[in-house]
Amino acid sequence: MKETRIILIGTGNVGLNVLKIIQINNHRSSNGGIRVVGVSDSRSYVAGQDLDILHIIESKEKAGRLSNKDFSGPEDLLGEHADVLVDCTPASRDGIRESDLYRMAFESGMNVVTANKSGLANRWHDIMESARSNSKAIRYEATVAGGVPLFSVLDYSVLPSKISRFRGIVSSTINYVIRNMAAGRTLRDVVEEAINKGIAERNPQDDLMGLDAARKSVILVNHIFGTEYMLRDIKYTGVEEKAYGINDRLITEVYSDDGRPVAVSRIVSLPENDFLKGIGMDGLGYQITTDNNGTVNVGDVYDGPYETAGAVVNDIMLLSKFLK
Amino acid sequence: MKETRIILIGTGNVGLNVLKIIQINNHRSSNGGIRVVGVSDSRSYVAGQDLDILHIIESKEKAGRLSNKDFSGPEDLLGEHADVLVDCTPASRDGIRESDLYRMAFESGMNVVTANKSGLANRWHDIMESARSNSKAIRYEATVAGGVPLFSVLDYSVLPSKISRFRGIVSSTINYVIRNMAAGRTLRDVVEEAINKGIAERNPQDDLMGLDAARKSVILVNHIFGTEYMLRDIKYTGVEEKAYGINDRLITEVYSDDGRPVAVSRIVSLPENDFLKGIGMDGLGYQITTDNNGTVNVGDVYDGPYETAGAVVNDIMLLSKFLK
Repeated sequence: MKETRIILIGTGNVGLNVLKIIQINNHRSSNGGIRVVGVSDSRSYVAGQDLDILHIIESKEKAGRLSNKDFSGPEDLLGEHADVLVDCTPASRDGIRESDLYRMAFESGMNVVTANKSGLANRWHDIMESARSNSKAIRYEATVAGGVPLFSVLDYSVLPSKISRFRGIVSSTINYVIRNMAAGRTLRDVVEEAINKGIAERNPQDDLMGLDAARKSVILVNHIFGTEYMLRDIKYTGVEEKAYGINDRLITEVYSDDGRPVAVSRIVSLPENDFLKGIGMDGLGYQITTDNNGTVNVGDVYDGPYETAGAVVNDIMLLSKFLK
Repeated sequence: MKETRIILIGTGNVGLNVLKIIQINNHRSSNGGIRVVGVSDSRSYVAGQDLDILHIIESKEKAGRLSNKDFSGPEDLLGEHADVLVDCTPASRDGIRESDLYRMAFESGMNVVTANKSGLANRWHDIMESARSNSKAIRYEATVAGGVPLFSVLDYSVLPSKISRFRGIVSSTINYVIRNMAAGRTLRDVVEEAINKGIAERNPQDDLMGLDAARKSVILVNHIFGTEYMLRDIKYTGVEEKAYGINDRLITEVYSDDGRPVAVSRIVSLPENDFLKGIGMDGLGYQITTDNNGTVNVGDVYDGPYETAGAVVNDIMLLSKFLK
């Protein structure tokens, strides 16, 4: 297999772990492998066909930046000849920055892998149209349910089936908060703790309002039903200051209501024998109902930035394996 | 996508459902699709580039045979130009018949999909060698854990990872028996009921001795660790006339013991929060521990011949999608 050259934009928790996993894998695989030809964080970048990944990781971890070269925008990197652009940047509010970035990548002959859901949640149509017109692909395993295999299962494991329903616990923060509130604690108290533990973002409003789950619903419904929904087409609710039950979870559901695809995120009390109820505090997971492959449950035990990075690298490897 | 032509050998519970799913899918997909150019059961066959699947299904269901043409062997079918040979025949004891069949298929330019585990469990080396030397592929999703996506998940969803451990409930019959015995019933009583319900085979000795699970272990360990183990390399136990606990299950495990791949099937008592314990009486499932994609749990709610047939058709579609 030919080597796959990638440009990685964003080296926060997920992006840095992407580099670490690539480093491990390149030592493991006898042929193929992934060559990193460009990396940026918000302030600095490195580019070139002969980069030293270990050195980049060390720079970032020790000095807080990748190099002394200031990053002014994706143009700093897109000059390098590459096969895949990997987006591990933080989400923008409207997805325009992401959509523009992917269009530039497609037009430069690259496929895209993203862990950032904002572009797809806000500008699905534009991104898919731009991929199509350039005969390029975009994969986004890490955008929903962290590291749990989801889009790869839909794309490779249930090919003969129509999916009639998806139900999942796809957002960690809000479920962490609900489950701790069910133990009698206040919203404010739990959120503070979650931020301190690094489970919630420093500004957790999007998560708590259910917006994070709603953005994931957009991607899910569009992938499963071929729609071009946007955030305004999704029904969602968030967490409130109230008493939750121990079986309450924020469940994201996507299904066909008499032929019309529906996406909804809401807090429901799960029955005792529900697979989703069995997912632990640190895990994520989902259930898909298919017509020809039964009802399939998939989940993980612990889901953090490393597992999410694993999903990103899986996408890169899928593209490199099947698009050549 | 080009049409994929298949020859299906064996039209028992699984094979007949393979035809039904193909029939459904061909009406659904606008392009591509699967063309059936040969079908046999143990006594009769049909062959030709313009077969009517619905008519074949009806013949089999009403008359108990596919046509009035007597089947004398795979040679009756291999003359048809086809891309994939699908083996849904009952397992032979030594796997020689299957191994010979696949070699003929590979040499005729076909890939192979099998739901029959005997060839792979008994003659893994010969089959893989023959596939390699003819540059052909074999897929076998339906041989382990029925319709639960397993080899497709290993092949497409955890690409960056080494698997360090597989634990699964991959055989229905023996677990059905153990769980009913845990409710206080005798081995003989439960087995009789299982046969009457169609859960166990009429001759359930292989299942009860743990041989069925052991054969699956061979395929698992060879797939995951690249070994060429045979049945004699597997440790396994079966069910005994004794009192089982309600958490007892036959678990099939494959792991690396200090670098040496081990495969073992045994009855163990599962802890309360074990994902495998949550799998219902009618389901199958497994847990894989990976280094870069976390610990992934996959299971289904109901697993029967239809779901197994769905796994067979998924394999056909994977071959047709990626091998052209």
